[in-house]
Parts: sequence; structure tokens; C-alpha cells
Amino acid sequence: MVTERSGAERRRDADGDGCVFCRIAAGTAPATTVYEDDTLCAFLDIRPIARGHTLVIPKRHAGTLDDLDTALGTRLFSLGHRLAKALRRSALGADGANLLLNDGRSAFQTVHHVHLHVVPRHNGDIRTFTTGFLFRGRVGRRPDPAATAAAIRAGLDRLDAEAPTTPSDTEDKEPHA
Amino acid sequence: MVTERSGAERRRDADGDGCVFCRIAAGTAPATTVYEDDTLCAFLDIRPIARGHTLVIPKRHAGTLDDLDTALGTRLFSLGHRLAKALRRSALGADGANLLLNDGRSAFQTVHHVHLHVVPRHNGDIRTFTTGFLFRGRVGRRPDPAATAAAIRAGLDRLDAEAPTTPSDTEDKEPHA
Repeated sequence: MVTERSGAERRRDADGDGCVFCRIAAGTAPATTVYEDDTLCAFLDIRPIARGHTLVIPKRHAGTLDDLDTALGTRLFSLGHRLAKALRRSALGADGANLLLNDGRSAFQTVHHVHLHVVPRHNGDIRTFTTGFLFRGRVGRRPDPAATAAAIRAGLDRLDAEAPTTPSDTEDKEPHA
Repeated sequence: MVTERSGAERRRDADGDGCVFCRIAAGTAPATTVYEDDTLCAFLDIRPIARGHTLVIPKRHAGTLDDLDTALGTRLFSLGHRLAKALRRSALGADGANLLLNDGRSAFQTVHHVHLHVVPRHNGDIRTFTTGFLFRGRVGRRPDPAATAAAIRAGLDRLDAEAPTTPSDTEDKEPHA
């Protein structure tokens, strides 16, 4: 799973030079964008485990979590949380999601730019999930990326519309039990 | 992977009654604690994929990310980020980590209380990692939990000692590339 890389490759992406996710963040490499702001970008994985499999990245290059600014990490994971909630509200009809961040090559990180996977899940999807995990989009129907991204964006809009009624009372309740 | 539960079981943990993670948070069930504050608790997984496999939970019951307050989610993931950095600085000598949150039963969530897995990784550990993933602590040497937790806490202390030199300049730089 962990591939050896040449010294030149390692030097090249130490600061993001030649990094495909930096190019996506800069708009110079193609991607189907789900969300974007000044510091973050979320786009569909080109080898999805499941329809709607999204990657969240910081726009500024950080190879691993060790290189990632704390505040930017907070935003990254918060967007992952929002996406997990949005997928349940989207036309994809997710029942849940796997959020996964492989930090470092030892942990199967294949692109040396921090990225959080958000993979929609459905009740009883174990067979299609396993196929997707093993073959990463190389078998089965290829869903329309533009329609998929639009569905997730609509889920984010629905989530935002709920915001006034979302509790934000972290401080004033005792833990349960 | 997803087990069927009786109606009584589902009703019982809908608000945390009978939830083992609520009992750990309350100190009424045993766990080897790595970190604790007013809102969060991190403790060693009793069926570790690897030595130092830690779970981060909110003390207040939230079944899924959909039930989890945004601010509390931010704290949860930030602690996961800190732990990933601490593991690299600890005597466990991690080269990386897998951060995984299975959100919902469809996503293999087995305890219905939000929990973030932080699993230390080492270069070339694929064989022990696979064994750990498949057998979850039921084979191989059982590391001393108290020593493991102490090592991670020492890693957190080392990380905190670095804090003054950690960049927190999220706002003032352009994204790379």
C-alpha cells in the first residue's frame, strides 16, 4: 500500500510543488467542486468508493496533520462534519458517512496534501461499498459528477436553512449519564 | 458488520441510557483515560487495532454527527488533530495515524455515541496493522494500557511545549500554488 518514491519526488512535493491538490485548489487542475471558501476546498474524489465520495482539503499546502495549522485543521474537520450532515439531507439520501483522514504515508496517505475523505453510506450497502472500496470507481455505473455535486450543495443549503434551530449550547448542559 | 438490534435496545440508547461511552464519560465504567476536559474524553480502545489506538468522545451523549452540536464537533476533531501530532512526539514513535469516524450504523458505527478513532501508524507496519484490524486486540502481545496512555500524555505535553512556535497564521498567507 505504501509506495516508495524517488528523492526527487519527495523533494518536489515537500512544499507543494507539483502537488495535484494545490493545483485543484488554485483552479489549474480540473475537479468537480462541492464547496469552496477562502481557505478550504471540497471536491468529488475521482476514484469514488461510493457516489458522493468527497475530499476536503486546505487550499494552502500542508503535507500532513503535523504541518497543518490548528485553526485551519478546525475548519477542515468542521466542513467534514457539515458535509456528513448535508449528505443525509441531500438527494443522495445517505443514512450515514465514513470520515477518514490518512495522516502520513505509513497510514496509506497517497497524495501528500492533507485531505479528509467523506464517504456517504446507506443501510445495507455493504456489497456496493466493498466493491467501491476494492475497485475505487473502476467498475459499475459512473454517476454524473455534476449532478452529484449539485445534490450535495443542495444538502448544504438545506442544512444552512435549519441553522437557526440548531442548538449551539455546548456550554450549558451537563453530560448525559 | 452492522448488527441488528432489538426495539428495546434502540429505544434505550436513543438518549444515552445504557450507553457505555456515557458511563465512561461519567467515570462509572472503567477506561484508560488519555485526556479529559469539561466536554471531551479520550481513552484507549479496549480492542485496539494498534498500540495507542484512542477514542475521542463528547461527554454529552450524541448518537451520530447529526445529533452533535457544531461547536462540540469542532472540539472533538481538534483533539483528534492534537492526538495525531502528539503520537508522533510520544514514545510510541508514530510516523502517522488514521483518523476515522464511522457515522451511523450503515457506516459500521457499533457504539451509538459519536467517537473518533485515532490509530497510530508506523512505517512498514502493514502486517501488524492488518492483524490488528482483523482481530482487534484478540491476538498478539497485550501492551500495558497505563504505560501506553502515559506515553501519549507525554506526547501531548511535548506538543503543548512547542505551542509558542506553532504558526497560527491561517489568515495572512496565500494558498500554495
